[in-house]
Amino acid sequence: MLQRHSLKLGKFSIRTLATGAPLDASKLKITRNPNPSKPRPNEELVFGQTFTDHMLTIPWSAKEGWGTPHIKPYGNLSLDPSACVFHYAFELFEGLKAYRTPQNTITMFRPDKNMARMNKSAARICLPTFESEELIKLTGKLIEQDKHLVPQGNGYSLYIRPTMIGTSKGLGVGTPSEALLYVITSPVGPYYKTGFKAVRLEATDYATRAWPGGVGDKKLGANYAPCILPQLQAAKRGYQQNLWLFGPEKNITEVGTMNVFFVFLNKVTGKKELVTAPLDGTILEGVTRDSVLTLARDKLDPQEWDINERYYTITEVATRAKQGELLEAFGSGTAAVVSPIKEIGWNNEDIHVPLLPGEQCGALTKQVAQWIADIQYGRVNYGNWSKTVADLN
Amino acid sequence: MLQRHSLKLGKFSIRTLATGAPLDASKLKITRNPNPSKPRPNEELVFGQTFTDHMLTIPWSAKEGWGTPHIKPYGNLSLDPSACVFHYAFELFEGLKAYRTPQNTITMFRPDKNMARMNKSAARICLPTFESEELIKLTGKLIEQDKHLVPQGNGYSLYIRPTMIGTSKGLGVGTPSEALLYVITSPVGPYYKTGFKAVRLEATDYATRAWPGGVGDKKLGANYAPCILPQLQAAKRGYQQNLWLFGPEKNITEVGTMNVFFVFLNKVTGKKELVTAPLDGTILEGVTRDSVLTLARDKLDPQEWDINERYYTITEVATRAKQGELLEAFGSGTAAVVSPIKEIGWNNEDIHVPLLPGEQCGALTKQVAQWIADIQYGRVNYGNWSKTVADLN
Repeated sequence: MLQRHSLKLGKFSIRTLATGAPLDASKLKITRNPNPSKPRPNEELVFGQTFTDHMLTIPWSAKEGWGTPHIKPYGNLSLDPSACVFHYAFELFEGLKAYRTPQNTITMFRPDKNMARMNKSAARICLPTFESEELIKLTGKLIEQDKHLVPQGNGYSLYIRPTMIGTSKGLGVGTPSEALLYVITSPVGPYYKTGFKAVRLEATDYATRAWPGGVGDKKLGANYAPCILPQLQAAKRGYQQNLWLFGPEKNITEVGTMNVFFVFLNKVTGKKELVTAPLDGTILEGVTRDSVLTLARDKLDPQEWDINERYYTITEVATRAKQGELLEAFGSGTAAVVSPIKEIGWNNEDIHVPLLPGEQCGALTKQVAQWIADIQYGRVNYGNWSKTVADLN
Repeated sequence: MLQRHSLKLGKFSIRTLATGAPLDASKLKITRNPNPSKPRPNEELVFGQTFTDHMLTIPWSAKEGWGTPHIKPYGNLSLDPSACVFHYAFELFEGLKAYRTPQNTITMFRPDKNMARMNKSAARICLPTFESEELIKLTGKLIEQDKHLVPQGNGYSLYIRPTMIGTSKGLGVGTPSEALLYVITSPVGPYYKTGFKAVRLEATDYATRAWPGGVGDKKLGANYAPCILPQLQAAKRGYQQNLWLFGPEKNITEVGTMNVFFVFLNKVTGKKELVTAPLDGTILEGVTRDSVLTLARDKLDPQEWDINERYYTITEVATRAKQGELLEAFGSGTAAVVSPIKEIGWNNEDIHVPLLPGEQCGALTKQVAQWIADIQYGRVNYGNWSKTVADLN
């Protein structure tokens, strides 16, 4: 069985071909951790700092294809110092979450979206593609092994980090002939422990996160390290994150490591508009971004709302803020779900973004957070967004 | 002792501060490999595929600074699967070479340039900077341990790969608090075993290697993995490498993983011009690039030659080729030193680049290769470009 993935690179459509054995969940081998850990108190959970007892590893080689999936005790990877992951950033990852529901099951939120994106990331840097459904099954098995460590309580979840790295030895720059796909999981608490905390952004045009013909739409390691220094710079000036601008028009693209949404009011028509940048190859194809757009289109009254993926600039934001047409703004991503924005530094001024009186977010931000939490925590069923991986009854 | 490095990011100058202990070569600890290997026959040497008996490792932490440098048997690295090098591409490297001279010494070629660039790469992604001279000393010691494996013969050398990776555990995206600097070495043969072999390039505007406000001028892993797929695409159409174009004017920037030079003739004045792209933040600050420019400015008659770092486009190259004003073109980099170009695919045509009759390179390409080889192999002394690391007498 061969799996084909098609990837568009500029005007060329590229067909990548994963050769050798397909990824096969039925080959799973499990080695239990002899020292199972106890769940930590919820208040001790720090994002991505503690991990569960097990990890999933699946080796791949160009010759053999996907090898035996193995759930085994969490532990170090041993790699040759010439492995291509260390030199040429052959690496990509995903981030998704699993939740405990009131029905006492554990579900993953939209894992099909993450797997589809992971395959696109892999194809873009010549790492092997894989059968998405098989990795979803295997990830479910991994979570099942550590189900006692999936935290309880609203805002708490198990963060899942599928990762793929090139492991071929040798310093030639070329297509990796060996790779390792692995999944680790981390019990996490709410991004904002005490409710929302709106952030201050620095509109950033002196550093550029992504570029047409680049890889900014893929979840590659390469997109992350270069963004830390601009963040430190912004922090020095009192801003928590960068609002990434692009091009001579200063288009708004993303915020920090999240997609970003703005809400405008058209004072003439009285209609509101929810806006985010279009997926033009420079914007990460965020799962939360897609969830926000889908829910907004489904639930907001089209007489009152326009939902648009379009280009918009920092100048439009600044101008409409002055005219009282900027209503709210928020980032979207798996870790925080939504992250409200209160101020944006630009041209030595701060653009003020309205918040609800006495609160740390706008009305739509709050509404969207509630919609998504209700689905994630199993209080509301929505399409096939929740995938049950374990039944604790 | 604190070490400060200054880095310009857009309009802001950033001062990074390496805290804790400085890198100190005098603390070196050596654990000899109990199983020393024998040199392989020259004809078996493949670039970056076999390594010497020892490696150098130096750990760093934000708390302690640089730890004990250790030369020890070449072997695997053991890292937590959440280490930031695997997820966010906190990684950078250098490439330089050591040569055997007729005086029976081993020298490194311009290591000060590589160390300066390595520090700039580190500062750009918030990895620790270090004392360049100390790393040069330590690398010398490493080479001395494996001096019997430095190959003999013209075109043969020891390729040196200093590498730095972020090793902090945890999935938060931020400044690494732990890192590892390591150096591995690989005996290598000439890039072209049987003399030059001129290459065919595809002028590439559908994928973008680097952009303003990005990191294309630094030797970061992040710049490499995204360039493999475009290379495969070019290869499908019969071209060995991409000639990277940038922007609406289609400026020529680099070729594959090398800098690139073109030679034009001004038919009106009869003067020749050696051209390469300026260091505007999108061009790797190549050591070989600098050597070519320095030697050309030093040795070529200014009555006959202009040496220019300026913007030039694929349109200029195509037009001047048709007018008989394109004389030659070559890539420059540590691995191949110079790599002659014979054809460039653009707009469904091939631009033909002249070669010397019956040869695989142009006249200046040949001359530059000879100048540099004479210095590298110690036949000619030039400034302080050769740094002796071991005396075998």
